[in-house]
Amino acid sequence: MPPARFVAGDWGTTNLRLYLCDEGGKVLDELAGPGAASLGGRFPAVFGSLLAPWRQRHGQVPAVLCGMVGSTIGWTSVPYVACPARPEQIARACTPLEGGAVQLVPGLSCRNRFDAPDVMRGEETQILGALHLEPKLRKGGHLLCLPGTHTKWTVLDRGSVAEFLTAPTGELFALLGEHSVLLPRASPAVAATDAAFAEGLEQSERFAHAQLLHRLFECRSRRLAGELAETAAAAFLSGLLVASDVRGALRAFEGLGAEPLVQLIGAPQLTALYAAALAGRGFASHSIDGAAAALAGLTYVYQHLPTAAVAHGS
Amino acid sequence: MPPARFVAGDWGTTNLRLYLCDEGGKVLDELAGPGAASLGGRFPAVFGSLLAPWRQRHGQVPAVLCGMVGSTIGWTSVPYVACPARPEQIARACTPLEGGAVQLVPGLSCRNRFDAPDVMRGEETQILGALHLEPKLRKGGHLLCLPGTHTKWTVLDRGSVAEFLTAPTGELFALLGEHSVLLPRASPAVAATDAAFAEGLEQSERFAHAQLLHRLFECRSRRLAGELAETAAAAFLSGLLVASDVRGALRAFEGLGAEPLVQLIGAPQLTALYAAALAGRGFASHSIDGAAAALAGLTYVYQHLPTAAVAHGS
Repeated sequence: MPPARFVAGDWGTTNLRLYLCDEGGKVLDELAGPGAASLGGRFPAVFGSLLAPWRQRHGQVPAVLCGMVGSTIGWTSVPYVACPARPEQIARACTPLEGGAVQLVPGLSCRNRFDAPDVMRGEETQILGALHLEPKLRKGGHLLCLPGTHTKWTVLDRGSVAEFLTAPTGELFALLGEHSVLLPRASPAVAATDAAFAEGLEQSERFAHAQLLHRLFECRSRRLAGELAETAAAAFLSGLLVASDVRGALRAFEGLGAEPLVQLIGAPQLTALYAAALAGRGFASHSIDGAAAALAGLTYVYQHLPTAAVAHGS
Repeated sequence: MPPARFVAGDWGTTNLRLYLCDEGGKVLDELAGPGAASLGGRFPAVFGSLLAPWRQRHGQVPAVLCGMVGSTIGWTSVPYVACPARPEQIARACTPLEGGAVQLVPGLSCRNRFDAPDVMRGEETQILGALHLEPKLRKGGHLLCLPGTHTKWTVLDRGSVAEFLTAPTGELFALLGEHSVLLPRASPAVAATDAAFAEGLEQSERFAHAQLLHRLFECRSRRLAGELAETAAAAFLSGLLVASDVRGALRAFEGLGAEPLVQLIGAPQLTALYAAALAGRGFASHSIDGAAAALAGLTYVYQHLPTAAVAHGS
């Protein structure tokens, strides 16, 4: 077994995933832990006890952590790096904790297409990973989509993160599924192969000038009219939401990339939904697994930390 | 005091309002009661005990009830009347209960602008009231907007309800305010005079081709950036939502009415929000109080019930 060199951690609001890695980012061991929202500030103690077995065996390997651990509800609040941001700039802006043994990756900020402030925290590391995994993304212009609770549409320009735009598509889907009178409770997970998802996409595209607000009631009225099964309402809603997100983003970023190819980064079941919506509009897509991208991004950051930081930590 | 002739009742999901009326619909007495959702089927008993004091004094006056009392969660499920629907057709389609002493007003159904089934229950009575209160609405074509949890945009054609379109604008506002990470909790009520509401309208109009999904995150990011006060986020969201609703509806019903005048029917604080959004797009509006419209509509229905039904009830 190659020697363990660092710990990579994706510490989100509801989940923590830790990987013990060799110099090149190969995973030697891994474990799961509590999300940032549940910790109430006890980050040093929780992190210390989670890492104790690894540290006992492998010494004080440094850790690189991304996600909400660097937010106001996290271990410490790490300032955003403003776009356009180059990968090495992001790696260099890590906030060291515990004498450099823990490095928190900064999020990104930008002024988005609609002249509004926008921020991301965690997705920047997946983008760094995608740039590492797919070297061709370092050249020219590319449109990335990172679907999730808050979907991030991102423009890459010659390897730099130029700008991005947030859509709370996943959050809206969850809120409507859990609390709205429009959907039956206990909505099942949605797959890109669901007929009702395809129907939601198609209905949305049929009246592309309609506002999303004027289509949502169909999740209820189509069930009342016997045109939609109770169990299919969530998939229909997902189709309406993803179609609206994709249509709006393609319009917002029109003309930015030469090829109609979108890079999707995320959980495979989610990227499949976006791939279907893009295909329906004549856009090809390429999907990159979100967990693999996060790990590759954390490895990139580890490898590009100022030397002093790594030496101090190890 | 003129003799009491009937009871008018607006029985929604969360509230019941009952009015004791004379022949012309003048209110002699009124009371409030529990909403349909909380009754679990005990409609006859609850209604009977609520009416007992009035019946003791005024005899078995008939009651005309509208709203969710006629739905699947109500006293009994009253079939929808399909559009186009004339007022007298709606009145004649009441479902009699208790030997005709109780009449439930039917809801309406239609195939909407986006070729989807649509339904309303309760708003049809406010529309009947508006037609009674404003005789000029019985001629020509008019666009009505009944803002609420589920806003109903309705087209009147020579006194007939031609079609309508539902937008769950109020429900989305409430869901986001109560459960989303985008808004701070305990959001205050929104007034049309709030600067942040005007800012939400303006921002929405500035990029009229944008999807609503791509603007919602601003409720959070503008606060993070210090561009929006915590207490103003709900008003900003309301501006974004109402602008999207109004813009989409004006587009959907483009060219239907000769004059750019929209009839707003609802609670005054809500119709004021829509009046502001319409004014921003160069549309005049005229507001009708929703409670007054409901009472006028119930009176219209009482006066147009088949004679046998009224005789039987009284």
